[in-house]
Amino acid sequence: MKHIVIIGGGTGSFVVLRGIKHYPVRISSIVTMMDSGGSTGRLRDQLGVLPPGDLRQSLVALSDTSQLWRTLFLYRFEQGDLEGHNFGNIFLTALEKISNNYQEVIDTAAYILKTRGNVIPVTFDRVHLCATYEDGETVETEAFIDEAKHKKTRISSIFLKPSAVANPKAVEALETADMIVIGPGDLYTSLLPNIVVEGITSAIRSSSAPVTYIMNLFTKAGQTSGYKASDHIRDIEKYIERPVDFVLINEEPPKPEVVEYYAKYGEQLVKDDMQSDKRVLRVDLLSPTAYNKPKADHTMRSLLRHDPQKVALALWQLIQKHA
Amino acid sequence: MKHIVIIGGGTGSFVVLRGIKHYPVRISSIVTMMDSGGSTGRLRDQLGVLPPGDLRQSLVALSDTSQLWRTLFLYRFEQGDLEGHNFGNIFLTALEKISNNYQEVIDTAAYILKTRGNVIPVTFDRVHLCATYEDGETVETEAFIDEAKHKKTRISSIFLKPSAVANPKAVEALETADMIVIGPGDLYTSLLPNIVVEGITSAIRSSSAPVTYIMNLFTKAGQTSGYKASDHIRDIEKYIERPVDFVLINEEPPKPEVVEYYAKYGEQLVKDDMQSDKRVLRVDLLSPTAYNKPKADHTMRSLLRHDPQKVALALWQLIQKHA
Repeated sequence: MKHIVIIGGGTGSFVVLRGIKHYPVRISSIVTMMDSGGSTGRLRDQLGVLPPGDLRQSLVALSDTSQLWRTLFLYRFEQGDLEGHNFGNIFLTALEKISNNYQEVIDTAAYILKTRGNVIPVTFDRVHLCATYEDGETVETEAFIDEAKHKKTRISSIFLKPSAVANPKAVEALETADMIVIGPGDLYTSLLPNIVVEGITSAIRSSSAPVTYIMNLFTKAGQTSGYKASDHIRDIEKYIERPVDFVLINEEPPKPEVVEYYAKYGEQLVKDDMQSDKRVLRVDLLSPTAYNKPKADHTMRSLLRHDPQKVALALWQLIQKHA
Repeated sequence: MKHIVIIGGGTGSFVVLRGIKHYPVRISSIVTMMDSGGSTGRLRDQLGVLPPGDLRQSLVALSDTSQLWRTLFLYRFEQGDLEGHNFGNIFLTALEKISNNYQEVIDTAAYILKTRGNVIPVTFDRVHLCATYEDGETVETEAFIDEAKHKKTRISSIFLKPSAVANPKAVEALETADMIVIGPGDLYTSLLPNIVVEGITSAIRSSSAPVTYIMNLFTKAGQTSGYKASDHIRDIEKYIERPVDFVLINEEPPKPEVVEYYAKYGEQLVKDDMQSDKRVLRVDLLSPTAYNKPKADHTMRSLLRHDPQKVALALWQLIQKHA
């Protein structure tokens, strides 16, 4: 079986994993550990645990257990002391408190959820994401970067504070990968935070597996404002220090009212300026159903999503031909 | 296999169940649903759920799963939003929120914890315990009754507000019981709250199974101050409307410093005034290890406990002879 390694976190990885788990591939999901907002951020701050949110999403996406468990893991309390906290986050937090090490936490959660594949925290180091903007300002912590929608300029670079060393399992996954998939997801808060972990770039650079990037549908206000497709690829290539081999781009236009809705928040459809670039595959990747992010973790809505089945089929075809 | 039905809740049932589960008996644990203090009380008030605390203790006591799960269920958060909440309580609360009915909650938890026996909430009605004292005052809710340590007088009667109807499974368990065990536990806040649920007294009265009462070690300040053994039995018989058939009394004297410690809180060893009453079995039932109640649920300490193995052996001998 071919080994496919997904790099990301949050909803983007959730979509890819939910689709690809139905194909005969070995799956590793490398997950960012820099979230510091919402329920995850409060658990981090108050209890000193590693951020559970992105892990939870990948674990549930790969879960083969009953619907009840998956629903339970994504259940969010709406009132009282537990308001805004997600059961899955609380579960991982309690488990971390009673476990000897974080690998035990992952193993236990994966066992309960019967995950089809490995979920791999990119690092076990407790670090924060920092972003420097084109105007020279530096913002610290993922939560503040995510909220910096006032920024008129874009992010020029990110780094971690302090620096983080890669989980050896992440390096091993990349070294044995037959296909490395990056995205979709917020470039500077979901995807590249993985890459800036020490050891990840060198593992990707030395891997013989092709790198596929799944292009975001929209730009991200205050981070990648005005970004075209080529801008995304340029930034990723700068961080992974090698060329992207394939780019999956959605070619199905979303409904105009959805585009208008995003425009109110300063976000536009990512313009496809890749022309006849041979690396690009244009297919319909759009989810026909609207999807709302849980409101307590994120203040912004996310109406438009990639479709798990469409993305998985496109990836599967790529794997068969090129992996 | 003989069917043994334990009536109680909290730490008392926990001790009995932990021991008796190792014997070849069918076990049902009927559990009070009137707790309104601590973590349980906050979850009840804030999220409108049924009180999970007593259920959790019985579920864990009967659990045959790995130590990890049992530790997780009893894990209590010490800081932040989740402070004082117990993971097991949060688990049952989230499960109630996504389940169709409470039996589904119990079934799921029992499945995960691999419980050796049935845990049966005495009622699914959302009710509060009320106590009328000898001085005529009535105090409402279990939490306030538990805290009413200022009371110089004792409780003269308890009732539920509104009234509650028994869970049919509790009635069925009592009807098919070969032995009914009451206690140990706080008479007016753990044991009798079960009995005042509509349908329980008639089921106990019409059952042909002998009723065994496990005598408390200490009196309870503000509730059963100065109570001797015979006072406990008189009160229980008043509520179950039939005689108690057997009484297990600890005959091992605790260390004087423990007795002194309890005295500071106005609690004394229950005086054994049963003399040559044929129903009494006097054995060493004392736990050699001190036991501390989780501090967030209860402000008072509980240094002295019955021993699970000793209690279970005594019960097993009774069952073999009389059930």
